[in-house]
Amino acid sequence: MILTEYISVLQEKIMQARQEEKTIVLIPTMGFLHEGHLSMVNTVRQDDEDCEKICIVMSIFVNPLQFGPREDFEQYPRNLARDVQLAQQAGVDLLFVPSVQEMYPEEKTLTTVNVEGVTEGLCGDSRPGHFSGVATVVAKLFNIVLPDAAFFGQKDYQQYIVIKKMVKDLNMPLKVYAVPTVREADGLAMSSRNAYLTPAERKQAPVLYQALQEAQALITEGERNPETVRQNMMNKITAETTGEIDYVEIRSAENLSPVKTIRRKIVIALAVRLGNTRLIDNIIVEV
Amino acid sequence: MILTEYISVLQEKIMQARQEEKTIVLIPTMGFLHEGHLSMVNTVRQDDEDCEKICIVMSIFVNPLQFGPREDFEQYPRNLARDVQLAQQAGVDLLFVPSVQEMYPEEKTLTTVNVEGVTEGLCGDSRPGHFSGVATVVAKLFNIVLPDAAFFGQKDYQQYIVIKKMVKDLNMPLKVYAVPTVREADGLAMSSRNAYLTPAERKQAPVLYQALQEAQALITEGERNPETVRQNMMNKITAETTGEIDYVEIRSAENLSPVKTIRRKIVIALAVRLGNTRLIDNIIVEV
Repeated sequence: MILTEYISVLQEKIMQARQEEKTIVLIPTMGFLHEGHLSMVNTVRQDDEDCEKICIVMSIFVNPLQFGPREDFEQYPRNLARDVQLAQQAGVDLLFVPSVQEMYPEEKTLTTVNVEGVTEGLCGDSRPGHFSGVATVVAKLFNIVLPDAAFFGQKDYQQYIVIKKMVKDLNMPLKVYAVPTVREADGLAMSSRNAYLTPAERKQAPVLYQALQEAQALITEGERNPETVRQNMMNKITAETTGEIDYVEIRSAENLSPVKTIRRKIVIALAVRLGNTRLIDNIIVEV
Repeated sequence: MILTEYISVLQEKIMQARQEEKTIVLIPTMGFLHEGHLSMVNTVRQDDEDCEKICIVMSIFVNPLQFGPREDFEQYPRNLARDVQLAQQAGVDLLFVPSVQEMYPEEKTLTTVNVEGVTEGLCGDSRPGHFSGVATVVAKLFNIVLPDAAFFGQKDYQQYIVIKKMVKDLNMPLKVYAVPTVREADGLAMSSRNAYLTPAERKQAPVLYQALQEAQALITEGERNPETVRQNMMNKITAETTGEIDYVEIRSAENLSPVKTIRRKIVIALAVRLGNTRLIDNIIVEV
């Protein structure tokens, strides 16, 4: 594995891989790697048994542009030494760890990418500017790496839909995939932010996934009113945790538009604050 | 020359050119071609005497996104049959003439690219949203064509600076060049919009370039106060035309920031309404 913080070095190595006719795959992360990130590497490696056809580029960059002024940019967990080891073991070929200066050399003014239609509601409401920051840094990474494909975690489902829409709207020449959420044994979705949880909060946290599972069971039993399903979930979360619900929503899985009746493919998504930690999770349900 | 309205066909032809190891050059236009556009083709062809190393892609697309609600999108002059002939004669290899539907298949919501720091002032003030529309469509064209270089006219100097900043900020993998403004015999900068001028307005129009030349002469004689130079220009335009001045500005040629003293490389830029026609022009002066 090659590790670099410089765009120029990364691009030189990618050019070599491309000359060897390798497919370039990008996995953008904010580091503090867990099984969720590594499963993306495994998913790609499964298609590349002899490690000869695919070049896996992973980026680790805690992007200040996607954090609000009162959010956890400074506190966001970082452990580069451990990340390097995990990435290497998983089979990453090129690990790109740029500084903020390398990614944003202009201090005062910036070009931003703004995705409309899928950034309103859900996390877009409580995190204004977040998805513009995400779209901008991902557009930069796509232009730097020029990957054939990029992988994102399903846990950040709205982010995945935002990136898919950006790619389609701006004619970016790559494919975008989501990889299923990896969970702890008790169901909690893996997230770097789980490290913030106190032991007491950690015990409550699995209720979020349980609420999603109960919602799925209700729908399987025939419930088609999203409001009934939402209310059931909110009741459970309120009764069984000390968390503050940010949102519980049922939306079209394709474009995140609100649904009046549950049909076809929907995403059930939630965000809950447990103490100082904001947790998100979601499941896709097909009727 | 190959003419197509489809992205897929264009990309197939570009892939062939790339396999033949040709350099891909993009010249984005809104059509109604004049010598200013064709000089960009000539500039590129000069470097490619045997027409074997460079593939010139020209796009013709009147981009609705860069026109304001009260602007001239519907009236903008179009003459595809003539454009095809001129492009072919000049040596364009691929002429891309997409429909609005091909470029913006999503009707309701869009992803936009917003360049900050160089879109305020000058044309940015009187045309809100204009440069976001320009940056968005050019980002799309860059992603569709993936050119090694793109050429723009110096007449639209702010647009050139906006595109350069977008390319730098978003790490787009290409070089951007401006080609000198081509002028009529009497000095009027060539523009598709000159077709709007009445004969009486056409007679007054060369005063704009004369004002720029007088400004340059003043600076050559030693004047370093931008306000004095501006006032002189405005007096001349007011005295010798019936036009309404939108702006007369002296800015840094590099980043369009205002200057208190004329030094290094500056751009003197103006926009004047003659009747219903908004004309722009500029010159670069090095001290």
